[in-house]
Amino acid sequence: MDGKLDTNRVFTAEGAPNIALIKYWGKRDEKLILPQNSSISLTLSRDTLHTTTSVLVSSKLDEDRFYLDGEIQDLKDKDVAERFGIVGIMRKMAGIREKVLIVSRNDFPTASGMASSASGIATLVYVLNEAFGLGLSTRKLSIVARQGSGSACRSLFGGLVEWKRGAEPDGSDSYAEQVFDEKHWPELMDNIAIVSQEKKKVPSRAGMKQTVQSNPLYASRPAAAEKRLSELTEVYGKKDFESLAELIMADSNEMHALMLSTRPSIRYLNRSSYKVMDLIEGLNLSEGKNIAAYTFDAGPNAHIITLSKHNAKVMEALEQLKASGDVFDVRQSKIGQGPSMLGKDFSLIDDAALGPKAGN
Amino acid sequence: MDGKLDTNRVFTAEGAPNIALIKYWGKRDEKLILPQNSSISLTLSRDTLHTTTSVLVSSKLDEDRFYLDGEIQDLKDKDVAERFGIVGIMRKMAGIREKVLIVSRNDFPTASGMASSASGIATLVYVLNEAFGLGLSTRKLSIVARQGSGSACRSLFGGLVEWKRGAEPDGSDSYAEQVFDEKHWPELMDNIAIVSQEKKKVPSRAGMKQTVQSNPLYASRPAAAEKRLSELTEVYGKKDFESLAELIMADSNEMHALMLSTRPSIRYLNRSSYKVMDLIEGLNLSEGKNIAAYTFDAGPNAHIITLSKHNAKVMEALEQLKASGDVFDVRQSKIGQGPSMLGKDFSLIDDAALGPKAGN
Repeated sequence: MDGKLDTNRVFTAEGAPNIALIKYWGKRDEKLILPQNSSISLTLSRDTLHTTTSVLVSSKLDEDRFYLDGEIQDLKDKDVAERFGIVGIMRKMAGIREKVLIVSRNDFPTASGMASSASGIATLVYVLNEAFGLGLSTRKLSIVARQGSGSACRSLFGGLVEWKRGAEPDGSDSYAEQVFDEKHWPELMDNIAIVSQEKKKVPSRAGMKQTVQSNPLYASRPAAAEKRLSELTEVYGKKDFESLAELIMADSNEMHALMLSTRPSIRYLNRSSYKVMDLIEGLNLSEGKNIAAYTFDAGPNAHIITLSKHNAKVMEALEQLKASGDVFDVRQSKIGQGPSMLGKDFSLIDDAALGPKAGN
Repeated sequence: MDGKLDTNRVFTAEGAPNIALIKYWGKRDEKLILPQNSSISLTLSRDTLHTTTSVLVSSKLDEDRFYLDGEIQDLKDKDVAERFGIVGIMRKMAGIREKVLIVSRNDFPTASGMASSASGIATLVYVLNEAFGLGLSTRKLSIVARQGSGSACRSLFGGLVEWKRGAEPDGSDSYAEQVFDEKHWPELMDNIAIVSQEKKKVPSRAGMKQTVQSNPLYASRPAAAEKRLSELTEVYGKKDFESLAELIMADSNEMHALMLSTRPSIRYLNRSSYKVMDLIEGLNLSEGKNIAAYTFDAGPNAHIITLSKHNAKVMEALEQLKASGDVFDVRQSKIGQGPSMLGKDFSLIDDAALGPKAGN
């Protein structure tokens, strides 16, 4: 580095995770991350969970540097490199050669096991678009984000978001788009029940591949998911919660069933997850209608989708799982918006992040 | 009743349950109980678990009477009547009109939740064949037993037993037959881990129907099961335990995955069941090869198939689940034989069973 970095040229954005209602589990192209079926999700509110990412582009940097939650990341590590590849893609699009300094932080509950990659990559792609002066459409950005982590593409929009499967081999028609914005159904909400963690190594990427290649039950999955997605979009439009809840639970169970029946078996749900399922089914049964729906991504934490008018009942029911130690925290989230830029005066990049090599 | 019953004419037989290695879950004919796919099971040893059934046929009985585990059964109850229908079928075959007194007892561990219907019906069909003087072949008996409870047909033989799917609409080619007798692989054994019971009402018959009719993943099941059954028969013949274990676990998980993904969701496995799965997978991993395989029927109790030379390790591993209260008993079983007649001097029918209405 041959001089002082211009920290006035720092760009900072904020984004949020999403919770899939029709799940993505299975690729048709490993490299481009093209899915076997379309998926659909709700973007969560940044008030509840968010990633903040600052980027500095400078010719004075002699190499890319990436800090995540205060720790420098090894860009030679295979997992990190796969995700970080989107920086190279966007730099090439911008026709520039400058290196970047990225500082990213997830404001998620400690030890929550919340998947942060969707939020992180969507936010990174969003802020790089500004920092590189690319001016890409959000749809284009979703195509880039998809290549970092499939489900990340859905976090580029707010509300109910569909990631279209597409058909082209180059992935040009496999992008995300908003189906309904966050104002369409403001009563809808997500209670994220953080459950007791029984740490277990689950080989997610390899597992997904294994499901597609060798699980005989998988053959029916892509068509079943597409059909359920159409139905879900329709009932969401009509704000038919009874039907929405049924579709949400069916799809979550279908994905976890495919995981369970893959060899080696993939089991993200733990006993506390099953207790949440029992609880919600019991609650719906006693109410005589669906007032809540559980859904689980690739982890044990439960997302309980409900309507604000039913939330007191859901929270009351969850009390018994708090008492038993199965649920140790519940984070309530409204449906949120896509990423946005924060004020120029807000930056995660400080002297500590710049570190000795970046010092003046 | 117009006189004393001749209790010298009592026939008594004993039979055992079986544990399916390739599962039966889904009918193609509800009335005749014809399955969607062939299934295969090991008959357990009568030394470990057995049903004993005594039958008295007499013109002096004014109605059929059926005692199960000391309690008279209501033959007008739909569930009981469906199973008891086999008595009528066999009486018709024999061309007789006499009523029967049946006393049956399951010698299973208390509150074990072991499926007793397979053992009970196989034993009943077997003893009625003697009592009615029918002289039917075991294959024919398996066709009758099938109509009482599908999996019961497999308990009419010992060793490894296949229930052939068949193709005829009348079910005449959907019978059980022995593939290998119990002497083929004497080292093979089953440890039945009775787990802590979290009582839950699971609608099994209705659930099975619901899976076939509305679970999109089910489409691939019948062919997958048939393929796995052929593979299993081959590796069983070669005594290739490594491959056998893999197929056993795959099929158990596949059935429970189909249950999980059915709406409403059917979940027989409880947290203790999942702990057994984790334990066995961990054990196999640490051994660098499969030394045990778990399999679960429609209930939470684990059947752990292993070889006698590995049994000490399996039992040692299970100790930690005993300590945690997840497993409260383990019953060890060799592979057993089909039902057999007990001596004429052995009868469950006593004055108490005959009861006041049958008194002289």
